[in-house]
Amino acid sequence: MDKLEVNYEDVPEDYQTLGGRGLTSTIVASEVPPDCHPLGPNNKIVLAPGIVTGTDAPSSGRISVGGKSPLTGGIKEANAGTSFSQMLGRLQIKAIVIQGQRKRVIPAHDYDALVRESVDEVKKVVKKEKLDAERVLRAERANKNRKSLVKWLENRIEGYYLLKITKDGAELLDASEWSEKGLYEAYDELHEEFGEKVGICGVGIAAEMLGANTGLCFNDLEGRSSRYAGRGGLGAVMASRGLKFIVVNDEGAPGVEIKDEEAFESGKKKLTDALQEHDVTKPGGALNSYGTDVLINIINEAHGLPQRNFSSGYDERSSKVSGEAKAEEIKKRGGTRPHPCHPGCIIQCSEIWVKPDGSDPVGVLEYESVWALGPNCGIYDLDTIGELNRACDDLGIDTIEAGNTIAVAMEGGLAEFGDGEKALELLEEIRKGTPTGRILVNGAEFTGKALGVARIPTVKGQALPAYEPRAIKGIGVTYATSPMGADHTSGYAIATEIMGVGGEADPLDTEKADLSRNLQYATAALDATGYCLFTAFAILDIPEGLEGIVETLNGVLGTDLTVDDVPTVGQQIIEIEREFNKAAGFTKEDDRLPEFMKMEELPPTNETFNVPDEELDKVHGPEEAPEEAPEEGLRPF
Amino acid sequence: MDKLEVNYEDVPEDYQTLGGRGLTSTIVASEVPPDCHPLGPNNKIVLAPGIVTGTDAPSSGRISVGGKSPLTGGIKEANAGTSFSQMLGRLQIKAIVIQGQRKRVIPAHDYDALVRESVDEVKKVVKKEKLDAERVLRAERANKNRKSLVKWLENRIEGYYLLKITKDGAELLDASEWSEKGLYEAYDELHEEFGEKVGICGVGIAAEMLGANTGLCFNDLEGRSSRYAGRGGLGAVMASRGLKFIVVNDEGAPGVEIKDEEAFESGKKKLTDALQEHDVTKPGGALNSYGTDVLINIINEAHGLPQRNFSSGYDERSSKVSGEAKAEEIKKRGGTRPHPCHPGCIIQCSEIWVKPDGSDPVGVLEYESVWALGPNCGIYDLDTIGELNRACDDLGIDTIEAGNTIAVAMEGGLAEFGDGEKALELLEEIRKGTPTGRILVNGAEFTGKALGVARIPTVKGQALPAYEPRAIKGIGVTYATSPMGADHTSGYAIATEIMGVGGEADPLDTEKADLSRNLQYATAALDATGYCLFTAFAILDIPEGLEGIVETLNGVLGTDLTVDDVPTVGQQIIEIEREFNKAAGFTKEDDRLPEFMKMEELPPTNETFNVPDEELDKVHGPEEAPEEAPEEGLRPF
Repeated sequence: MDKLEVNYEDVPEDYQTLGGRGLTSTIVASEVPPDCHPLGPNNKIVLAPGIVTGTDAPSSGRISVGGKSPLTGGIKEANAGTSFSQMLGRLQIKAIVIQGQRKRVIPAHDYDALVRESVDEVKKVVKKEKLDAERVLRAERANKNRKSLVKWLENRIEGYYLLKITKDGAELLDASEWSEKGLYEAYDELHEEFGEKVGICGVGIAAEMLGANTGLCFNDLEGRSSRYAGRGGLGAVMASRGLKFIVVNDEGAPGVEIKDEEAFESGKKKLTDALQEHDVTKPGGALNSYGTDVLINIINEAHGLPQRNFSSGYDERSSKVSGEAKAEEIKKRGGTRPHPCHPGCIIQCSEIWVKPDGSDPVGVLEYESVWALGPNCGIYDLDTIGELNRACDDLGIDTIEAGNTIAVAMEGGLAEFGDGEKALELLEEIRKGTPTGRILVNGAEFTGKALGVARIPTVKGQALPAYEPRAIKGIGVTYATSPMGADHTSGYAIATEIMGVGGEADPLDTEKADLSRNLQYATAALDATGYCLFTAFAILDIPEGLEGIVETLNGVLGTDLTVDDVPTVGQQIIEIEREFNKAAGFTKEDDRLPEFMKMEELPPTNETFNVPDEELDKVHGPEEAPEEAPEEGLRPF
Repeated sequence: MDKLEVNYEDVPEDYQTLGGRGLTSTIVASEVPPDCHPLGPNNKIVLAPGIVTGTDAPSSGRISVGGKSPLTGGIKEANAGTSFSQMLGRLQIKAIVIQGQRKRVIPAHDYDALVRESVDEVKKVVKKEKLDAERVLRAERANKNRKSLVKWLENRIEGYYLLKITKDGAELLDASEWSEKGLYEAYDELHEEFGEKVGICGVGIAAEMLGANTGLCFNDLEGRSSRYAGRGGLGAVMASRGLKFIVVNDEGAPGVEIKDEEAFESGKKKLTDALQEHDVTKPGGALNSYGTDVLINIINEAHGLPQRNFSSGYDERSSKVSGEAKAEEIKKRGGTRPHPCHPGCIIQCSEIWVKPDGSDPVGVLEYESVWALGPNCGIYDLDTIGELNRACDDLGIDTIEAGNTIAVAMEGGLAEFGDGEKALELLEEIRKGTPTGRILVNGAEFTGKALGVARIPTVKGQALPAYEPRAIKGIGVTYATSPMGADHTSGYAIATEIMGVGGEADPLDTEKADLSRNLQYATAALDATGYCLFTAFAILDIPEGLEGIVETLNGVLGTDLTVDDVPTVGQQIIEIEREFNKAAGFTKEDDRLPEFMKMEELPPTNETFNVPDEELDKVHGPEEAPEEAPEEGLRPF
């Protein structure tokens, strides 16, 4: 981005078998200095589809995004399901690396020195930087005042760009006209300009503010801005490079090369069968019928659904925003349910939520979003939650972090719990770029600090998802020890503790290091494949499902991986990430839940988070260190 | 504070020889959990006069304040010169430990649950908490609305207290009437109520907002709120306990016990002679004539005076705010110069700055304050700086952090560099408690994050003082490696690098680990004695001076310390502090300067901070680890 150049590179030998999180974390760890400022020139953004993404393997349209996180200060991988990813796969693009930063002609801190100099001086600088002479001339004509000339030049140089990718190549185009626009509107206009069928990745107003709670947004099936690699603030990293959108058109793409068709087809069938057999993922099953939000009632009944900034684990009103209630409303209103997030998904947990009159489609209201913007803020009304979710998608912020931020703001006195109207106003503060907006756009921990709130539910600076670790200890172990900060997807212990998938475990049992570690390894591996995390339900219970996944990988890569390689590969990815974090200054003291959860009892279970530090340290303890010099075939994929 | 109780304790055997920083850091390290939230119930504030403080040893009226810092997340010792400290010494109070937190009757997060309950329910809670029945009754009469009843009760419970200490004992009094008042006004009223001669320690409006840039304020010789243990946010820690002021009256105090009068008198004479002989500290010498601000011209000429948020090391306009210019103005206006910060100081570097007509005495404008609020913000006008300094003192914030915060805000676009009026308005935002104020009150790093500024001059979250580490490397080594965050007083390499005190060193030479380490040890030891840091100039050059200090310590303690013990004692204090930080999650990655200083060349020297990480790690490297089990007489003092 500093040179406004686009270059293609062959995939290095070492990276041939990598994909998704395996590839993003490997590139970030080897190319980004762990001690760099996340918004400074040395950070990078890496986007990579999974290994099988772009094929017709079921539910495999995930994209991973990596970089150093402005929210956690550590390495970050966030992923999303979107046709954008499949298009990259079909174009045989293994990764996009966005590096460099549009250089300011005149650093802001030299204003007062420069404005004392002559216009000639400014022109000299401009010339030295090889700027377009005509632009300078126009600037001079338009601006009599030297100071505004400087500002004008700076703004031009800092303008936002769009990376357009087709089968014929890639180029950077001016995208300044979409700056400071909501993403729903911007995506509509981008589709008008570049075609209905293009895939779009973009960052919103919040990222332009360089807020630490900003995601990368991807198009949904209808082209809307509703699919997010949301967590960890990578949106701001992309915006700080000067890149606002990536538009991809896969017309005439060669498709994913498959080295062993037989293995691939066999694997695809096994996985499809498993997904269609398992109760959680089958057609008419829990996810298909009610979406992820089916968890509201389940987790509430387990007394683990955090209410009002993690001050209770249960509230009877929660059922008003359950997946069951929502599915009924969607049917009444004429929304869509079920619905895939990308072509070829057979789980189809998604949906299109609409207003009571059927207007203003939002996209999906996920369990995490419903919880964060709902019960965690004392809000038990789906229409309010829908509007809050729409505002998050439009601004380009992560709903989990946003809901936690609003809840902390409520605890800090900016609103009463339950006041949905005020919650919406708070999000509008971000849109307006007010000082309050600048606080909120930086997430829950930042907001808590601004307001003097000591009860802040974060790990490594990232806010907790929708499961109370005091009532469900294993997920707390994952929150504490994931290299990503508090992240349920990094090792979804809920599956075993609550749903009985992959075995059973008492939620209140504190010995959860093994469970969390195994799940963290499995997830890291899965995040590399491009398969949706929800395939995990089926493959944890049905051995042929996992075999199927491995066979499709062998099909695409021409390798001979076995199911036994999966945890090893996952471990290697985690260790690469932990090494980065260590070099960035993380220690075991960062693998802890917030202090208040160890002191405050959570009603109605009246439990504290009583997992000993030693148990937490066992998850990635020294005895779990990776093998030196991984053997052939055991590199991360 | 949770029980509103005051208890006296005998000094434990182990702590008999400790004082000042040696005592505060020892207590904090042994009683405060390193992983606690700085504003939560488990943090403590410890105040301790130095070992000789309260005697007539020259320039020995320092007080140390310790706790876990909300700014750095590590241990903090900040100190000030004030008669308050001497009064504690004369009352034979070795330390004040403020612990516990006023418990809220109803946690904020239970509002919405509670307001759905009956008044009876609220009364039950109140009864359970043993609150004053009459108060509850009054509350009920005054408030028809249940919600405001809850709020009213909470406010009463959260009200601020005042700790009054006399020779007859100590008690906690209601101090709510001084809440949300400026400190100049509050100190006037407190003197009216408790007497002209009392010593006062207090925290301001900014601390009530629980901002991370908030200091503990002590009275100057005229009783004004101008002497600060400013750095690291301990003001918010005190406010979050519920304590607003400590008022001490030493009438009838027994005085400091001196175990060996002969040693004490001999030491006092040697130190006095050294101070009166050395060019920096003697009557009519640099500090006495011009105060600390004498450094403006010296450091500017060395091209190490940071300008406009550390974007240059020199600006010819700096001389307008030099100590020489200021001394002349003070004389013209009828201010006071020289002036001691506490009775018995023979250096007398202080002063009383006034407006052009002689009104509105501010107190001293120190070099650090003048620089931070002046050149670092592009402001070169003493009257503007005086007003900014007065506002900081009145709000209860540290001037170094405040000046850096304003400069970062200017870089982030909240004001133009040089705009003094706007800078004053920004401080007023804090007074008003606006969202902008809530950002600014949390310091430079927080403000930079809110505004998306990547050039933030902080170490461990604490902003840099008035010396450019790219032009003067040794002070950069201290900034990076001090357990306190960026702190010039922890190891004042400027003495050697610029002033030729304690030897000579080329400012651009990068081998500065030994210099910084030796100075950090010497300083930590000195901070335990109660002597002003400025005695260091004399004792570094005149061996009898250091002998004198050690003899006065032996005089008070009845020990037989020698000058060789001084670095060992200093090392032990530093190691206690570093152990705390390690347990709080600090690593060598925290012992680094900000990234931009390694990338950006500083005009006019065009130097980067090129001290290798290995040199930084040598300062407190493993080979420098403290002896196990310190021998008798070698404990920190």
